[in-house]
Amino acid sequence: MRRRDLIALPALAAAPASAAPVRTALCLNEDNSHWFSTRAGQALTPEFVSSFVDQYAGTQIRELILSANSQRTSFASEVWDPIWKGYQPDGPDDQPLLHSTPEAGRAGARRWIHTAWELAEKKIDPYALWIARARQKGLTPWISMRMNDLHNVDDPASYMHSTFWREHPEYRRVPWRFSDWRDRAFDFAHAPVREYHFRLIEEYCRRYDFDGLELDWMRFGFHFRPGHELEDGPLLTEFMRRTRRLLDTWEKRRGHKIQLGARVPSRPQTALHLGMDGALWAREGLVQMLVVTPFWASIETDMPMELWRRLCGDRVTLAAGLELLLRPYHDYRPLQFNSLETVRGAAASLLSRGADRIYLFNYMDSQTEMADRENYPALLRECGRLETLAGKLRRHIVTYSDTWAPGEAAASQLPKTLGAGQWAAFRLHVGPRLDNGTVRLKLDSATIGALRINGDLCRPSGPDSWTIPFAISGSVVIDLQAVKPGRVDWVEIAG
Amino acid sequence: MRRRDLIALPALAAAPASAAPVRTALCLNEDNSHWFSTRAGQALTPEFVSSFVDQYAGTQIRELILSANSQRTSFASEVWDPIWKGYQPDGPDDQPLLHSTPEAGRAGARRWIHTAWELAEKKIDPYALWIARARQKGLTPWISMRMNDLHNVDDPASYMHSTFWREHPEYRRVPWRFSDWRDRAFDFAHAPVREYHFRLIEEYCRRYDFDGLELDWMRFGFHFRPGHELEDGPLLTEFMRRTRRLLDTWEKRRGHKIQLGARVPSRPQTALHLGMDGALWAREGLVQMLVVTPFWASIETDMPMELWRRLCGDRVTLAAGLELLLRPYHDYRPLQFNSLETVRGAAASLLSRGADRIYLFNYMDSQTEMADRENYPALLRECGRLETLAGKLRRHIVTYSDTWAPGEAAASQLPKTLGAGQWAAFRLHVGPRLDNGTVRLKLDSATIGALRINGDLCRPSGPDSWTIPFAISGSVVIDLQAVKPGRVDWVEIAG
Repeated sequence: MRRRDLIALPALAAAPASAAPVRTALCLNEDNSHWFSTRAGQALTPEFVSSFVDQYAGTQIRELILSANSQRTSFASEVWDPIWKGYQPDGPDDQPLLHSTPEAGRAGARRWIHTAWELAEKKIDPYALWIARARQKGLTPWISMRMNDLHNVDDPASYMHSTFWREHPEYRRVPWRFSDWRDRAFDFAHAPVREYHFRLIEEYCRRYDFDGLELDWMRFGFHFRPGHELEDGPLLTEFMRRTRRLLDTWEKRRGHKIQLGARVPSRPQTALHLGMDGALWAREGLVQMLVVTPFWASIETDMPMELWRRLCGDRVTLAAGLELLLRPYHDYRPLQFNSLETVRGAAASLLSRGADRIYLFNYMDSQTEMADRENYPALLRECGRLETLAGKLRRHIVTYSDTWAPGEAAASQLPKTLGAGQWAAFRLHVGPRLDNGTVRLKLDSATIGALRINGDLCRPSGPDSWTIPFAISGSVVIDLQAVKPGRVDWVEIAG
Repeated sequence: MRRRDLIALPALAAAPASAAPVRTALCLNEDNSHWFSTRAGQALTPEFVSSFVDQYAGTQIRELILSANSQRTSFASEVWDPIWKGYQPDGPDDQPLLHSTPEAGRAGARRWIHTAWELAEKKIDPYALWIARARQKGLTPWISMRMNDLHNVDDPASYMHSTFWREHPEYRRVPWRFSDWRDRAFDFAHAPVREYHFRLIEEYCRRYDFDGLELDWMRFGFHFRPGHELEDGPLLTEFMRRTRRLLDTWEKRRGHKIQLGARVPSRPQTALHLGMDGALWAREGLVQMLVVTPFWASIETDMPMELWRRLCGDRVTLAAGLELLLRPYHDYRPLQFNSLETVRGAAASLLSRGADRIYLFNYMDSQTEMADRENYPALLRECGRLETLAGKLRRHIVTYSDTWAPGEAAASQLPKTLGAGQWAAFRLHVGPRLDNGTVRLKLDSATIGALRINGDLCRPSGPDSWTIPFAISGSVVIDLQAVKPGRVDWVEIAG
């Protein structure tokens, strides 16, 4: 027996070091419903549709990544169900397609459906228009395919579901239970599931002349039966190979390069244990862009970019995926969104750790948007490069990882309960040199005595804030001691 | 600005794939006090000393790794304090050297000190004898140097401490606090600290003709001021380079290869954030053996060997470090030790995941020993190879990681509190194919309904045990649902 054969994950060939300095940028993901629901009721001319792209021209957005499906497509697919399948344009809001949807959600759902239906009626393909306009404006147009979207799967009758999903409960990941949405994800170990999804990839290639195709495995990130991920994960790798080969044939027909991308969990071991071997995909040259990202519940400010770079090599474009929500831990309330200052913090940190792109997910131009909508243009012009972030106020916030493999030990720095006199340490990556920073805490009952950063004393500047009288950079440790016992709920450094 | 320059951890050159199949084995670490205290009072002839090694001849032990110092040396060092410095052979047990030691510990401490002193008086060097005998018996002799031992640092007057440590509180890692032993570790950012330690490395090279020198950075694993680890870690890398260069010169003088080894934390990101970049040391060819290991509080049954292999390449001998204690989580009681069956489980799993060695730490021939001492010979003959483990009863137990960087979010699968009806998942790596396995739980109040492995139902075979009616292998997930609420404290699969 050659023992090396037993190692599921072989050592990888290294990529050659790139000679040219990399110029970083932003990616923007436009989801598959936002535009349709927010533009409902407007006059849907081709120019009106195309003009959506213009706001991103001249910004730091390089890749405009257009998500075009969840379980249904937002265009007139010939191989999957379009979102308006079963829709009666003249019917009431509680028509059969929307009957199971809670009353409060029907009008919003209908806006998406109706706009997509109306465009199809008019033979206007918004994705074709956006791709053309993006290229015209110097942006790089991508299509993103959500590989396992689970919105509303607690309601099997929901308008969002495909016929295929409804008709094949036996293809689900956890057919013996329903404890949350993820149980009803497709299990990609089933060949018909893979074939069904590959049909849409083929259609995307036939239908659209994009510069890149992203397979979004993080919508919703669970593709195998619990415990089968390491055994079945190679099926996804083979699926990526097949997709790459298909794109190779389309490169010849289109006469230009077509990149393949993938979105995977933020930490390598979790990604492996969920069956998504992004590092291998990068090393094999299957993907040209790899996005590492949390799922949704919070932006993840401390993703191990250095580790990803080591595992992936230098040939891949490594993107750090940002989400819109901001939480220090899952049960923290109130819910809040990121703002220009918090995105600056995350972006400065992740770029300084080697990210080639800051990838904005759910940062759209309305409705699903940052806390300070008025700063959206600034965000698009600042947060893709360290040079444009330098000297601007940024906030670095301790958050957590929202995605773990089944059974994996899940960790969170916060909340932290402290007895009187007890010490606690928090780690936070603050990116490039930061002068005159401030530490801010939110405390429940606790009061804090001495607070140090990297061993040096900070100066109290309020009940829950401290001035940092020296420069800091990179990964820093905040050490603090409780005077009065209680809980620490929030830790940030701003400056 | 070349952004790549900002990346602290550059992409690594790959090692060439090895052609020959690797034959796995065991390493055994004999600590720096055990032999001396357990052999006290015996007639210390050279042959008696040498014969200690014989029990390991003809077993699966390949490297016999002799630890020869903590803060003091157990041999007659000319550059560091020997353990008997200040010792009065004819004095009472409460003589000045031992005065601060609690009364109950004095006799044991004295046995170590006295035996080492007596050998020095007789001009018998036990390490020289053991090295010679090991080589004669076909074993590969190594010396291991503990780089930052912290036993008893709560008592600055303890017999264990070096003059250098006592005289230089300003060189400590956390000079502004004493919350636990680790605060009083040397901070290797101080050049005099590095020089002081390098003097002993030089002496080891002059004094002993070993086949390998291990720098044990996991005694106790904390070498920098909190928050300074990423900035200062390169100082350890440079220290490793310097040591490797020194060994290169000794290879010429000795006329044979001399390997360098290192012990580092069990997970790559934690190792990096503690300043120990073992993966880089392996890729640069600085170390020929890398031991990844927990510190002490428990064996760690689920170390990510595949990830280490990817990061380190194939040229390095990758050893999985086992500790003697066995706990599912830190506060679990009663304390217990590993046994032949639990070591079989850990070894089968870690070897199947790519470990070249199972490295036994604190598995000695007496006193500090496994729960079932009578099985020690069997352990030495079975646990280094999958072939000799096949078909033997083994126990796979969910444990936890005992070492985390300051501020790092620390995780543990257990204990797990469940409400009525609530599901929980546990992940466990069981190594090669296991037929007829049994799941065993320890529960506090809880009762469990259905229990599945990888989605398939197991059969109840007792209140807290289930028969697995199918074969399993590799990383498996146990899904279970609480009928009555309570806590899960222990999860294992035996078979």
